[in-house]
Amino acid sequence: MSTALKSIRSIAPLLDRVLVQRIKAETKTAGGIFLPESAVKELNEAKVLAVGPGGFNKDGQRMEPSVKPGDKVLVPQYGGSPIKVGEEEYSLFRDHELLAKINE
Amino acid sequence: MSTALKSIRSIAPLLDRVLVQRIKAETKTAGGIFLPESAVKELNEAKVLAVGPGGFNKDGQRMEPSVKPGDKVLVPQYGGSPIKVGEEEYSLFRDHELLAKINE
Amino acid sequence: MSTALKSIRSIAPLLDRVLVQRIKAETKTAGGIFLPESAVKELNEAKVLAVGPGGFNKDGQRMEPSVKPGDKVLVPQYGGSPIKVGEEEYSLFRDHELLAKINE
Amino acid sequence: MSTALKSIRSIAPLLDRVLVQRIKAETKTAGGIFLPESAVKELNEAKVLAVGPGGFNKDGQRMEPSVKPGDKVLVPQYGGSPIKVGEEEYSLFRDHELLAKINE
Amino acid sequence: MSTALKSIRSIAPLLDRVLVQRIKAETKTAGGIFLPESAVKELNEAKVLAVGPGGFNKDGQRMEPSVKPGDKVLVPQYGGSPIKVGEEEYSLFRDHELLAKINE
Amino acid sequence: MSTALKSIRSIAPLLDRVLVQRIKAETKTAGGIFLPESAVKELNEAKVLAVGPGGFNKDGQRMEPSVKPGDKVLVPQYGGSPIKVGEEEYSLFRDHELLAKINE
Amino acid sequence: MSTALKSIRSIAPLLDRVLVQRIKAETKTAGGIFLPESAVKELNEAKVLAVGPGGFNKDGQRMEPSVKPGDKVLVPQYGGSPIKVGEEEYSLFRDHELLAKINE
Repeated sequence: MSTALKSIRSIAPLLDRVLVQRIKAETKTAGGIFLPESAVKELNEAKVLAVGPGGFNKDGQRMEPSVKPGDKVLVPQYGGSPIKVGEEEYSLFRDHELLAKINE
Repeated sequence: MSTALKSIRSIAPLLDRVLVQRIKAETKTAGGIFLPESAVKELNEAKVLAVGPGGFNKDGQRMEPSVKPGDKVLVPQYGGSPIKVGEEEYSLFRDHELLAKINE
Repeated sequence: MSTALKSIRSIAPLLDRVLVQRIKAETKTAGGIFLPESAVKELNEAKVLAVGPGGFNKDGQRMEPSVKPGDKVLVPQYGGSPIKVGEEEYSLFRDHELLAKINE
Repeated sequence: MSTALKSIRSIAPLLDRVLVQRIKAETKTAGGIFLPESAVKELNEAKVLAVGPGGFNKDGQRMEPSVKPGDKVLVPQYGGSPIKVGEEEYSLFRDHELLAKINE
Repeated sequence: MSTALKSIRSIAPLLDRVLVQRIKAETKTAGGIFLPESAVKELNEAKVLAVGPGGFNKDGQRMEPSVKPGDKVLVPQYGGSPIKVGEEEYSLFRDHELLAKINE
Repeated sequence: MSTALKSIRSIAPLLDRVLVQRIKAETKTAGGIFLPESAVKELNEAKVLAVGPGGFNKDGQRMEPSVKPGDKVLVPQYGGSPIKVGEEEYSLFRDHELLAKINE
Repeated sequence: MSTALKSIRSIAPLLDRVLVQRIKAETKTAGGIFLPESAVKELNEAKVLAVGPGGFNKDGQRMEPSVKPGDKVLVPQYGGSPIKVGEEEYSLFRDHELLAKINE
């Protein structure tokens, strides 16, 4: 989904959505040798850039999102709404679709 | 969906629906050269024109919409009910289908 | 769905149903020239003729319908239960299926 | 669904079910000429013969049915459980499936 | 579903299930002539043999079953869990699947 | 589903699951003659070996299971999660999937 | 799903997710003879490594997970989100998908 946006920072996710960018896998081995494109698997680790205010439970109360900007998370292989700003690619996931936090 | 309406302003969305118009991508490069039709991708940015009173939660209380007229939003690639007034095209989305606000 | 009814006025929608009749598009141009059948698109504008008492929310309380007889509304392209009285055609929609009110 | 019942009156619908019999369309024109079988369309008007005590809402409270024996109603083209008593045919619909009351 | 049970009386339905046995249609005409197998339609009338304690509504309260042992009921043409004890066939239906009581 | 478990007794079902073992049909006639494999139908009777603490209703309260270890039950023909310990086969059903208790 | 993670310990499951590692079946017979790959069936026993804070019930209250790190559990044959850290494989299941605890 391409946009004419100048910066991803202008995106404020709505409801329980979370804006993330996948972390790119190393394209070189430890010894500095470039890996072929096919070997560079798409990682499922991502950085949280922005978080919506949270969805509503059935009584209409806001549900606190479980992550915050700056967190590292494990995202599902598929799903999410892709967003393109210039050449950079981002994704919008629902809070409950995120699998885990990565505490490093 | 064509209508015999004279102006889009007469449309008052019902429940949690939001009336938007997609922002057209630049058809010329910065240098003024016209882009071929195929290069002008449909953007997913849109302007909010009108907002319904909001849907009901399961207890029958109104749920405040998360956007207001004048907001710029990111809309999903597909979905929404298309509306045509004269040659202009608009869409009706449900509030919870909108992906993000664009704060520029 | 044909009926032996003499008048549409005898129909009292149940629950959250709304009885509407689509507004027929102009079959002549402003200059009075008759448009070919194919050019006369089915409009999605309709007039509300009768409204049910409203559906129930999960606690069994009545939910006020969002339109009233005489309102002009935007109806979805498809859906609704068609009703024929003599040669006239009408439709029954659920209140939440109606897209917008038309304030003209 | 054939039964060995002697009379339809012995049927007491359960929960929110409503027992109806479709009203047969005129098989003769006003002038008394018999219409061919194919021309006699199945009407969607029916008479209510018996009504169950009503279904339960999620809190276990009974929900008042919206029709009563003797009412004339508009029923959907399809659906309902067919019941045959001798040569007569009846149908059981759920209360919320009925489209409208006919006040004549 | 065959069982090694000696008697159907040892079956105590769980939750909102109801144990019934379909009433066999007359295999002879009033005048005593045997009907061919094909003519003996499966009736949808059945006798209630045993009733479970009832299901739970969403708050965890028991919901009273709408029938009791000895009642005659109208059961749907299809559905239910078939049970065989010796050569006799029975069915387990959910309370809300039963169509009507037969008050004869 | 094979396991390296030494004894089925070490299995403690979670939530509303119930561990059962199907009762094997007699492989000999009363007179002691062995029945061919095909004639020995899979019975739907089973013995309850272990019961989970129960599931939650929508308010988060535990729901009492309807059976206890030692009960004899009627289980559906299909469904359940098969478990193999050595050569013995067991099944895990949800409490609400069990059809009836067998009081012998 | 491969990751660039150095250690599985940095994964903190979100909501009601549970991080497990399947227990590998013996690849040698008791007598020390190596089993062919095909004979080494995938066991459904797994060890719990980390547990999320729990999901929410419909009123937005946290639901205690039913297992804790160190527990041995029976997991379904299929399902779960696979995670690879180096050459080791792990899975993320939802708490309610786990079948049973193994008390050895």
